Amino acid sequence: MIPFKYSLIFLLSLPLLDAGVVKEFPYGTLPSERPNMELSKSMERVYEDYPAVHPELNELFSRFKYTPITGLDYNNYDGTISRRDSSKVIKVDGKYYVYYTRRKTEVPPKGNHGPNRGTEGATDTIPSRDWDLAEIWYATSEDGFTWTEQGVAVPRPEKPNAGWRSVSTPDILIWEGKYYIYYQAYYDIPGSRGGDFCPVSASVSDSPDGPFMPSNQIVLENGSEGAWDQFVIHDPYPLVYNGKIYLYYKGEMGGSPHSRAQGLAIAEHPFGPFKKHPLNPVINSGHETALFPFRGGIAAIVSRHGHEHNTIQWSPDGANFEIAAITSLLPIAPGAFIPDAFTNTDDGRGITWGLCHFRNQGLPDHNHSFLARFDCDLSLDIHDIEMKETDIFNHPEIYFQFGLSEKQKERIKGTHKSK
Amino acid sequence: MIPFKYSLIFLLSLPLLDAGVVKEFPYGTLPSERPNMELSKSMERVYEDYPAVHPELNELFSRFKYTPITGLDYNNYDGTISRRDSSKVIKVDGKYYVYYTRRKTEVPPKGNHGPNRGTEGATDTIPSRDWDLAEIWYATSEDGFTWTEQGVAVPRPEKPNAGWRSVSTPDILIWEGKYYIYYQAYYDIPGSRGGDFCPVSASVSDSPDGPFMPSNQIVLENGSEGAWDQFVIHDPYPLVYNGKIYLYYKGEMGGSPHSRAQGLAIAEHPFGPFKKHPLNPVINSGHETALFPFRGGIAAIVSRHGHEHNTIQWSPDGANFEIAAITSLLPIAPGAFIPDAFTNTDDGRGITWGLCHFRNQGLPDHNHSFLARFDCDLSLDIHDIEMKETDIFNHPEIYFQFGLSEKQKERIKGTHKSK
Repeated sequence: MIPFKYSLIFLLSLPLLDAGVVKEFPYGTLPSERPNMELSKSMERVYEDYPAVHPELNELFSRFKYTPITGLDYNNYDGTISRRDSSKVIKVDGKYYVYYTRRKTEVPPKGNHGPNRGTEGATDTIPSRDWDLAEIWYATSEDGFTWTEQGVAVPRPEKPNAGWRSVSTPDILIWEGKYYIYYQAYYDIPGSRGGDFCPVSASVSDSPDGPFMPSNQIVLENGSEGAWDQFVIHDPYPLVYNGKIYLYYKGEMGGSPHSRAQGLAIAEHPFGPFKKHPLNPVINSGHETALFPFRGGIAAIVSRHGHEHNTIQWSPDGANFEIAAITSLLPIAPGAFIPDAFTNTDDGRGITWGLCHFRNQGLPDHNHSFLARFDCDLSLDIHDIEMKETDIFNHPEIYFQFGLSEKQKERIKGTHKSK
Repeated sequence: MIPFKYSLIFLLSLPLLDAGVVKEFPYGTLPSERPNMELSKSMERVYEDYPAVHPELNELFSRFKYTPITGLDYNNYDGTISRRDSSKVIKVDGKYYVYYTRRKTEVPPKGNHGPNRGTEGATDTIPSRDWDLAEIWYATSEDGFTWTEQGVAVPRPEKPNAGWRSVSTPDILIWEGKYYIYYQAYYDIPGSRGGDFCPVSASVSDSPDGPFMPSNQIVLENGSEGAWDQFVIHDPYPLVYNGKIYLYYKGEMGGSPHSRAQGLAIAEHPFGPFKKHPLNPVINSGHETALFPFRGGIAAIVSRHGHEHNTIQWSPDGANFEIAAITSLLPIAPGAFIPDAFTNTDDGRGITWGLCHFRNQGLPDHNHSFLARFDCDLSLDIHDIEMKETDIFNHPEIYFQFGLSEKQKERIKGTHKSK
């Protein structure tokens, strides 16, 4: 299976290049084979860098569509209930399951917004951030649009166990008939230690409905001193690939400007030991990155942060990712329904929908997040032309929502005067 | 001047690579020099493919902010007045000038929406499309926010001269003290001949206020039969580079899926003859693409259509473009203020603002476009950190605006039932 053509084209194109022949690039649908003529770097990329010659034919290009989901109560969105960080969606006995961070607190988070705020105002019952004093809950659905909350999947353990303060940001693995939830386990108020430090732990159950028994261990260790992931390991994300458990995660490197990247750790048992990939970080951008088996490799939805935000990527080996498509308005913290996430497939079929979240709603006084549904065509098994449009009309009000700040207006006023 | 580091890094990195050494990528601000260790393909790109290690440090990364402009009347946006296709903004004697397509017709365009609609309903006074029965007008401004329309710059000539039906989509060149406007000159109703065929013509004046005298000639010929640009040459866009006139333009290749790309033609006189670049097309994506001198090369804002929509690109030679940054919510049909567009600079300084348009407003009955202002930091001379954020919060309503179609809902319902 050669989804990217460049291996073949590269070999063919060299002897065909002839700088002495000047031709005009042909009219009509882009030829699927590289024309026998010298090409600009840009046109070379059409043949070398993308899985197909046109986004409409590119199985890893999609736009995204969004639908509110029904069935979950948010107490009039007053900030006391929050749901975020959707896991992958799984299907068991004809029913969809999703796991997520759920916070229900007397009051909304205090001083929550921004990555480097402190913990002022937080108490044993008052959260510092949206994911403080949270638990992992789950919901089920027949159709993916209406969801019924079933209860807690991973409660907070007794102090001082990891997670006593908060358990958040779950993802799910099915391995040898058992269900494993990975999550961030806080034993500090999120925001203390100058960041958002938490080990990654995991719990296991024989059923998607639980009960989930804690491993009571750190399954993924932070990097050693000086390593890119020494302080932050977030968003644990397991897949089954090459007969092993591939656990992707986000590290934050600190500094200014602040960089985030994605790492990979591999194990033969869900509780580890996990061995970090020697090429880490494996994705130079992203935050809450979703991945899925695709053809013989692994694809990634890189939504937020960095040079390669707004891209869909693909790697032949789970470790060396290339940009396969550029898109926009990607889901935040997507958790997709991936039928072959755990089948150890070497012919991944892709995804068409999942859940995501909208965060920082009701700021500053009613801060919370809520879950929503996204749809896309990143699947080899459907061809939905409505998802393949690169030219998307936005209403002008969307643009004007992003207006100049007062500081910028002052700068511009000065420029116009001085020149 | 080496804006892209890879030429240097490539030479340095080979002897430093040592597959036997396994190190962890360092914590903190991304090192500006490639670490001496094996890297994933993704981390290699940080050092090879982008002008800096982080978007905040990348002079060719910017987000865009938008501001309505004042001073131009649109007859209550009833579709009888349209302004679109802003030229570059120029500054003469302390005053900004912009040229644009202006349509003022008794009624809005008939059957206008979509690229391949016919001309039904169009008459000598009823337009087929938003750019039918149009003229090139111009406006001036002291501050770039408030504009005063000054009148017509290029009227429609008498039938049967090219442009008798409509003149549209202007751009401006200053060359040896004279002002040249390039434009699409229709002698058919736009939409006839199965497309949007029009030659590119030009007019000249000693003053930015005109009068502009028509060249009465086609300055850029369509490609020969079978060439990618045989039917469509749109959006002529002149710059001065290497002592010559570099005229960029959009061609549409037809077929399904439909591809658009950007070509380049070079001349030593504004009226030609223009010689098309042998590597055309030079940009594989885009529509109404704006370009500007940047360092020793040419940068491009590639807004719409194709694999590389939503990118800022750069070429060292005006012909071989590489992606320099991925961004979102780019201006449509931008016309930037480019102080060094015509100075034959080999140290282009970039841009901070311009005008763009919002089109297809009031569809289907009041179709028109209007001009607005965009700001950005694609300049070597300012550093506006607010423009360097890759993680942009959109309101959920923006996402929900892009909901599933009825057809898609049916498809999904079937999927959920069958599995």
